[in-house]
Amino acid sequence: MKEIIASVITIGDELLIGQTIDTNSAFIAQQLNGIGVRVARRVAVGDQESEIRKALDEESALADLIILTGGLGPTADDITKPLLCNYFGGKLRRDQATADHIEWLFNEVYKRPGALLPRNQQQAEVPDNCTILPNPRGTAPGMLFQKENRIYISLPGVPQEMKDIFIGSVIPFLQKNCKTPFFIHKTMLTAGIGESMLAEKLVDFEETLDRSLKLAYLPQYGMVKLRITATGEDQPTLSQQIETSFNQLKALVSEYLVSDKDEKLEEVIARLLLEKQSTLSTAESCTGGRIASMLTAMPGSSNYFKGGVVAYANEAKESLLGVKHSTLSTHGAVSEETVREMAKGVLEQLTTTYSIAVSGIMGPTGSTPDKPVGTVWIAIANNNTIKTRRVQLGFDRIRNTQQAAIIALDMLRQFILTKSLD
Amino acid sequence: MKEIIASVITIGDELLIGQTIDTNSAFIAQQLNGIGVRVARRVAVGDQESEIRKALDEESALADLIILTGGLGPTADDITKPLLCNYFGGKLRRDQATADHIEWLFNEVYKRPGALLPRNQQQAEVPDNCTILPNPRGTAPGMLFQKENRIYISLPGVPQEMKDIFIGSVIPFLQKNCKTPFFIHKTMLTAGIGESMLAEKLVDFEETLDRSLKLAYLPQYGMVKLRITATGEDQPTLSQQIETSFNQLKALVSEYLVSDKDEKLEEVIARLLLEKQSTLSTAESCTGGRIASMLTAMPGSSNYFKGGVVAYANEAKESLLGVKHSTLSTHGAVSEETVREMAKGVLEQLTTTYSIAVSGIMGPTGSTPDKPVGTVWIAIANNNTIKTRRVQLGFDRIRNTQQAAIIALDMLRQFILTKSLD
Repeated sequence: MKEIIASVITIGDELLIGQTIDTNSAFIAQQLNGIGVRVARRVAVGDQESEIRKALDEESALADLIILTGGLGPTADDITKPLLCNYFGGKLRRDQATADHIEWLFNEVYKRPGALLPRNQQQAEVPDNCTILPNPRGTAPGMLFQKENRIYISLPGVPQEMKDIFIGSVIPFLQKNCKTPFFIHKTMLTAGIGESMLAEKLVDFEETLDRSLKLAYLPQYGMVKLRITATGEDQPTLSQQIETSFNQLKALVSEYLVSDKDEKLEEVIARLLLEKQSTLSTAESCTGGRIASMLTAMPGSSNYFKGGVVAYANEAKESLLGVKHSTLSTHGAVSEETVREMAKGVLEQLTTTYSIAVSGIMGPTGSTPDKPVGTVWIAIANNNTIKTRRVQLGFDRIRNTQQAAIIALDMLRQFILTKSLD
Repeated sequence: MKEIIASVITIGDELLIGQTIDTNSAFIAQQLNGIGVRVARRVAVGDQESEIRKALDEESALADLIILTGGLGPTADDITKPLLCNYFGGKLRRDQATADHIEWLFNEVYKRPGALLPRNQQQAEVPDNCTILPNPRGTAPGMLFQKENRIYISLPGVPQEMKDIFIGSVIPFLQKNCKTPFFIHKTMLTAGIGESMLAEKLVDFEETLDRSLKLAYLPQYGMVKLRITATGEDQPTLSQQIETSFNQLKALVSEYLVSDKDEKLEEVIARLLLEKQSTLSTAESCTGGRIASMLTAMPGSSNYFKGGVVAYANEAKESLLGVKHSTLSTHGAVSEETVREMAKGVLEQLTTTYSIAVSGIMGPTGSTPDKPVGTVWIAIANNNTIKTRRVQLGFDRIRNTQQAAIIALDMLRQFILTKSLD
């Protein structure tokens, strides 16, 4: 069975001048991998006809499937549609179903019929040589072209619209029309150990790893994901090999293992709290709401997260959390004593099973000789115990904040696991 | 003067299977644009020698400057360094300064001398045909090669290390060694109007825009950035043209203008609050700490942001904000009455000049017939007035949260501006 190779072309000057971060490509790669299609390259080009044509020519030489995103909007800087129509030798025609959909969107979804402009209506003009992929919540439909055994799919750049079309139309089409080789990833999440130390632990494991398997290290803010990939033809053998190697790997890193799935720390915590019907609250100073924000990004978080306090100023620590004025004046806001009182305060205020408290100096300003930038105190509490830890981070403000949030959440995870053994 | 064309090659399987979102490319593009270098393409390839070589060959045919990121780490899946050494016909040699730096990092920065492993020490092996670009906080140095009038720069993929080397070594090198044509962007930020409506307003403006200028629409969560770009040789004329057109554009969108700089809404709010020596607090339900997190991501935010409450559960709204039980039972958590009391509660608790309160249903669950997913109530308060607004969002959970945060912050911006005219 021949491996299907895909290439992703993203179109838009905003990608090349750095005003937009491309999140579409990661989504597309995940989806294609899920059905056994390998993404071999990604190319980003500007809103220039010659550059888009060059990318189409080059990627056609390499790939069986070419996904294009961007350049389909209603404004004058979007040029992809006429270019593709021409590239594949078609003519624009009016598609009544698309026209009806656009009108329906403005009337029923946006509730602004008066805002429907000729330039929106023009989005119903589509190449007569493509299959239309409906865009449930947007005006620009996706388009699928076939030429010389290759498939070309053009999608709007707005992430949610692209995702809807991808899941609703692209994946079903590919599953129906392409035969793919066996291809599988298995991923685990570790915390508390760096990439180099992990690699050192895994030297023997890597050397004896079967040739059909590949191990990758994916570091991210104090955590490292380990991913094994298997590719080949013999599905039963590969499934067994990856299973065996994955279990070996788990045993080798057991001390640092957060999850044996490709999931986030927040998801692990959600599961632990739901299993034990426990609740959580947060008292954040330096992380400024980031921990609460990470927790509440998960659907269903209201089942275990009751709320929190962003106690940025000292008076907020006193008035909302009951931290004693004398504690703050004697030990300072960044101290073990303060985070203990913050954790206790929010636990009592919101009557939760657990609480997290964090206070630190994220930089670039605010440091003192004995508390340099990156000094962070963390406390985890339940009704019986408070566990505290001081960490020293060495990055910039944004990264320190992210890392402090991760360390605090991982401390909570360990706290919950330990307490359930007591 | 010849335009300098750059191409960015990012290396790593994690980019092609969608496990990592590429933020490096946007940073690199911004930095290069800032010194007048145009990024014509970005290519992402996997950790495979043949694919990296192909990308090097192709981009060499197109670009004068090729930036590579990733593939320099200490683990076995990182293969870029030996490949580059070979591609440019060099041999690996040990660099004493890099070896000393690695040792210093483990001893003095990481404070874990025992963690220094042979694989880390090996990172001091560098091609003898490159210039070393020091990596202040990482073990893998950057490398600069020159061949046939082209410059190749290889940098580690860890974002902060890449950024340090880029600012510390790459930009100074390019400024010294390359002559670039005149190239300028001017950007403004609008809110409260969609891309299509804006484009309709600007039809005449775009048609009469000088050929040396280009207008782009960059939509983002309820806001649209408008960017004019000027490129050419005649610097004084271009500067004047872009200035004139930018001012025309400002006048045309004045009603929706948030900023006439390329800055975030949070930065505009920071400036307004600091100018008026005012303070702010937040009471968030459905946004779950996102507004506080956006505000505190700005260095110096402790000068105007005192703190906030993430009142996710109803009891948190009562205990921390003093929302009346009867209000919640009569009108519900997502109601005008509740957000009024939330805004008032946090304003009084933290004695701030202004407060923001948000309560809504972000989905996918939690809706009722008269309050569908996406229903959000927002209140902005000071000591004299409370302004409220109901909005209806139509996206997924993450996007609804982001958009609600933006709308609330823009309401605050308008509230501050209006009140200062009273």
